[in-house]
Amino acid sequence: MTKLSLDKLNKASPQEFAAALGSVFERSPWVAERAASKRPFSDVRALLEAMKGAVKSATRDEQLALLRAHPDLAGKAARAGKLTKDSAVEQTSAGLDRLSPREYESFQDFNANYQKKHGIPFVVCVRRHTKGSILKQFAKRIDNNPEQEFETALEEVFRIAALRLDQAFEGADLGLNGRLSTHVLDNHAGRPARGMWLTLHELSADDEPRLIVRVQTNADGRTDVPLIFGRPVPIGQYELLFSVADYFADQQVALAEPPFLDVVPVRFAIAEPEGQYHVPLLVTPWSYATYRGS
Amino acid sequence: MTKLSLDKLNKASPQEFAAALGSVFERSPWVAERAASKRPFSDVRALLEAMKGAVKSATRDEQLALLRAHPDLAGKAARAGKLTKDSAVEQTSAGLDRLSPREYESFQDFNANYQKKHGIPFVVCVRRHTKGSILKQFAKRIDNNPEQEFETALEEVFRIAALRLDQAFEGADLGLNGRLSTHVLDNHAGRPARGMWLTLHELSADDEPRLIVRVQTNADGRTDVPLIFGRPVPIGQYELLFSVADYFADQQVALAEPPFLDVVPVRFAIAEPEGQYHVPLLVTPWSYATYRGS
Amino acid sequence: MTKLSLDKLNKASPQEFAAALGSVFERSPWVAERAASKRPFSDVRALLEAMKGAVKSATRDEQLALLRAHPDLAGKAARAGKLTKDSAVEQTSAGLDRLSPREYESFQDFNANYQKKHGIPFVVCVRRHTKGSILKQFAKRIDNNPEQEFETALEEVFRIAALRLDQAFEGADLGLNGRLSTHVLDNHAGRPARGMWLTLHELSADDEPRLIVRVQTNADGRTDVPLIFGRPVPIGQYELLFSVADYFADQQVALAEPPFLDVVPVRFAIAEPEGQYHVPLLVTPWSYATYRGS
Amino acid sequence: MTKLSLDKLNKASPQEFAAALGSVFERSPWVAERAASKRPFSDVRALLEAMKGAVKSATRDEQLALLRAHPDLAGKAARAGKLTKDSAVEQTSAGLDRLSPREYESFQDFNANYQKKHGIPFVVCVRRHTKGSILKQFAKRIDNNPEQEFETALEEVFRIAALRLDQAFEGADLGLNGRLSTHVLDNHAGRPARGMWLTLHELSADDEPRLIVRVQTNADGRTDVPLIFGRPVPIGQYELLFSVADYFADQQVALAEPPFLDVVPVRFAIAEPEGQYHVPLLVTPWSYATYRGS
Repeated sequence: MTKLSLDKLNKASPQEFAAALGSVFERSPWVAERAASKRPFSDVRALLEAMKGAVKSATRDEQLALLRAHPDLAGKAARAGKLTKDSAVEQTSAGLDRLSPREYESFQDFNANYQKKHGIPFVVCVRRHTKGSILKQFAKRIDNNPEQEFETALEEVFRIAALRLDQAFEGADLGLNGRLSTHVLDNHAGRPARGMWLTLHELSADDEPRLIVRVQTNADGRTDVPLIFGRPVPIGQYELLFSVADYFADQQVALAEPPFLDVVPVRFAIAEPEGQYHVPLLVTPWSYATYRGS
Repeated sequence: MTKLSLDKLNKASPQEFAAALGSVFERSPWVAERAASKRPFSDVRALLEAMKGAVKSATRDEQLALLRAHPDLAGKAARAGKLTKDSAVEQTSAGLDRLSPREYESFQDFNANYQKKHGIPFVVCVRRHTKGSILKQFAKRIDNNPEQEFETALEEVFRIAALRLDQAFEGADLGLNGRLSTHVLDNHAGRPARGMWLTLHELSADDEPRLIVRVQTNADGRTDVPLIFGRPVPIGQYELLFSVADYFADQQVALAEPPFLDVVPVRFAIAEPEGQYHVPLLVTPWSYATYRGS
Repeated sequence: MTKLSLDKLNKASPQEFAAALGSVFERSPWVAERAASKRPFSDVRALLEAMKGAVKSATRDEQLALLRAHPDLAGKAARAGKLTKDSAVEQTSAGLDRLSPREYESFQDFNANYQKKHGIPFVVCVRRHTKGSILKQFAKRIDNNPEQEFETALEEVFRIAALRLDQAFEGADLGLNGRLSTHVLDNHAGRPARGMWLTLHELSADDEPRLIVRVQTNADGRTDVPLIFGRPVPIGQYELLFSVADYFADQQVALAEPPFLDVVPVRFAIAEPEGQYHVPLLVTPWSYATYRGS
Repeated sequence: MTKLSLDKLNKASPQEFAAALGSVFERSPWVAERAASKRPFSDVRALLEAMKGAVKSATRDEQLALLRAHPDLAGKAARAGKLTKDSAVEQTSAGLDRLSPREYESFQDFNANYQKKHGIPFVVCVRRHTKGSILKQFAKRIDNNPEQEFETALEEVFRIAALRLDQAFEGADLGLNGRLSTHVLDNHAGRPARGMWLTLHELSADDEPRLIVRVQTNADGRTDVPLIFGRPVPIGQYELLFSVADYFADQQVALAEPPFLDVVPVRFAIAEPEGQYHVPLLVTPWSYATYRGS
């Protein structure tokens, strides 16, 4: 996708501006239209604030229409391929296009119950979540009162819009991206562990672990690129599996048979999608340590 | 089971002696009969050595008959309930009575191949093994030459006999028992972690983990009795699962939502069934370490 | 010293009882005399409570006299060899007999200032302290109001008496003894570190470290007896020095030249003289960890 | 000092070239003169190799003269202010200008003994050493045979020249610089330890520790610049002192009185001056770990 240029949009006609940014707020081009009059914007953050301002100063009915313009999560529109392009990509990121029939049923029930109680669809910025944490959000938010949920839903709309802008513009940096990285130190030899295979899986309460990446450490004991970066790290449970015995066998270190440590699992959760999570492993054939680093 | 007294057996008639110990060597009472003449024995170890001596000085044909007196592992005799009482208990200890049809097939194939190549049944001291490590032994030993296997099988017979004696006698200590223990230190508060739930599972390549024990730490951060003791710790893969988040929540420690560490898995292998394995956890809400201790 | 027997004292004459225990409260045999009437005592704890009761129900003037019967710390009486035997041993335990002239001056000033403000000598149970922590107590307590200090001094008198009783009786266990121990795990080889030399020093702000013990680890990586036990562990700063490089060199482990880790210092403080302090070292040639264990 | 430009020197007259680089080899401008004919040099490394080539292809007498052109370490020339500018700076870097009278005597003895046995002054690249490691080199090298020492001395001359070139040229990078860095992780709060004071001292067998830097960690738990960088890290013993109790007190963490951990010492040695040494601290009020990282 060609990235947008803020310079050009600052100078474009109101119509061109609205056309380029009309989909930032779901099926609600009026947000972009109203923000156009605030140009020029010094940076993407200023543009985002102007668009949020347009929503905040809109009438209650307009805001309600904006919320109702959002599709159900894993809903019929998704099944029928009737999502906006952005929504489709977003729902896919959290695995909502790969639900089992039973999970699909759960989502339909949740959607219906929520809509019935709050009069709006359940809106959440799915790029910040895994399937499991979306279900937890459902369970937690459904008991709020409708006014709280109206506000919460608008906040989630702003998060969705921020991420859409962040990805649309060349060089935007709205501080929305987290990072998950690792580092393996061989405390037996006193150096970075080079060439150790490791995998990262997303865990789920009901489902098989989902492989995110399988990669080998480099000469510095790190991966060439972070395990997750350039996007929010979805809230959820993860597991790193480090192939420790294979590594030490390659180093010609004598191991027990079977080796005391073989594949070492490190299980942890992400709570802040915009956070920097560093999860290193300090390891010998007989010991290891891990921690939240930075 | 009433334990035997070495004092009494030292003074018993040869017939009584042989009757009491006739089943120590599988369906081979002649071993006990010949050892009887070496009485008195100062301790159980001396008795064991005398019985091993009887086997070692027996004819090749007698030795062969002894080996052939052993049943197949998970074989037809087991299915038909035709094992000796000792063999039945032993095979159960390694889970050989709970095989899936596919596993049962594998064992039949292994048994047949081994018997065909080596002319004896596959003999292994199953109390020192898990199902997984027995299959590894099969795979490793089948390629030996028959003479090696004849010797190896006799060694395993001696291990079986030693464990049978060790359990039969009051106060015997033949050094056959290993130990697996744990200890949880709360490095956040600087004291033992009291009241943390943990489980120990035996892992298997093909099968579900098998729960061995679920227990809570005491005021010293330990379990009231070791996780495994008073018997060999079977060679195999194990996993401890420590309920870290529940523990810290009980301590009123503020945690992330979801907590960075929830259930912490520690996966390790036992290689020496007679060894002392101590696998502690040093833990805060954000870090942990483990190692083979003592 | 021959230990006392509670049984015998329960049956002794009041005079014998008072003679045996007259020195438990400094130069105040009336405490023992009054407690004699409460016999028999089921255990030493009950005896202690009876003696404390006698003090608590004494007149204010009697209590004041009891406090004033205590010598200055490192004072003129000590210099002149005029302490009671118990006081002399106690002051020696904290090194108050080995002060430099400058330190001696400091103690005189403190004693005089304290006496002037509070009308009593500065009373502290020195067996629970090092020189440094006594000076900290001085600095902290001098600013209390006299009534607080009167109470605090009585509490210290009770602690002194408890320790004197605890040592006087066969088999007494008043819970006054702490313990300091260590354990060295070789995470490079996955076993206890046997034969590592280590020293324990008491640290002091102004003075050279004072060697308490130099000892070698045994086959279990521990010392044959705890570093400090059977007495309170004095409040203060300590340092363990572990001869790590020598140990690994003995194990034929290849080390850098000079080795990355040579003598590893672990510096910590004791705050609870009655506590169990376990300070282990988990070590490889390239890493180590320590923590307050149990 | 104005840095040299290789471009300009490639085009300069032979006289200008020799004038600029005449001091790279101690009092031996002929080395630069002979290397001039090999111009142009693509980079500083090529220039270094050409200069080394000139030495290697010189006569034995010329080589001997080069070695003898080096001053004694901490010798009379140094005392009399008669060193070349480069030598003076180098000897100062290792503290050879701050010797006690006793140390000065030791150096004179060593110099004399070495000169007598090997017929050349003791040459060592002092920028790679501390006072202590120079004395170890003396002790080790004096027992070599003269031919070995002739070669070793030339190698050290090449190291001295390389460092002189590396510093003389704009943008040179001859891989001669090591790095020592640290990082403090607060495992109690699960984040980098911000604002912790720490010091780095160089240790010495006979002398007081020498303060190299006192610095506070930044928001990432690191120091704004590495503790040592942009030069070789001298071989020797070092100690980091981390003000752990002050840090946790600032974080409002409840501590024991006195705190279990106050100032945490980490003592280690540098063996490779060109290496990357990362020595982090993972710490809670009750535990810490350190290791050679990268």
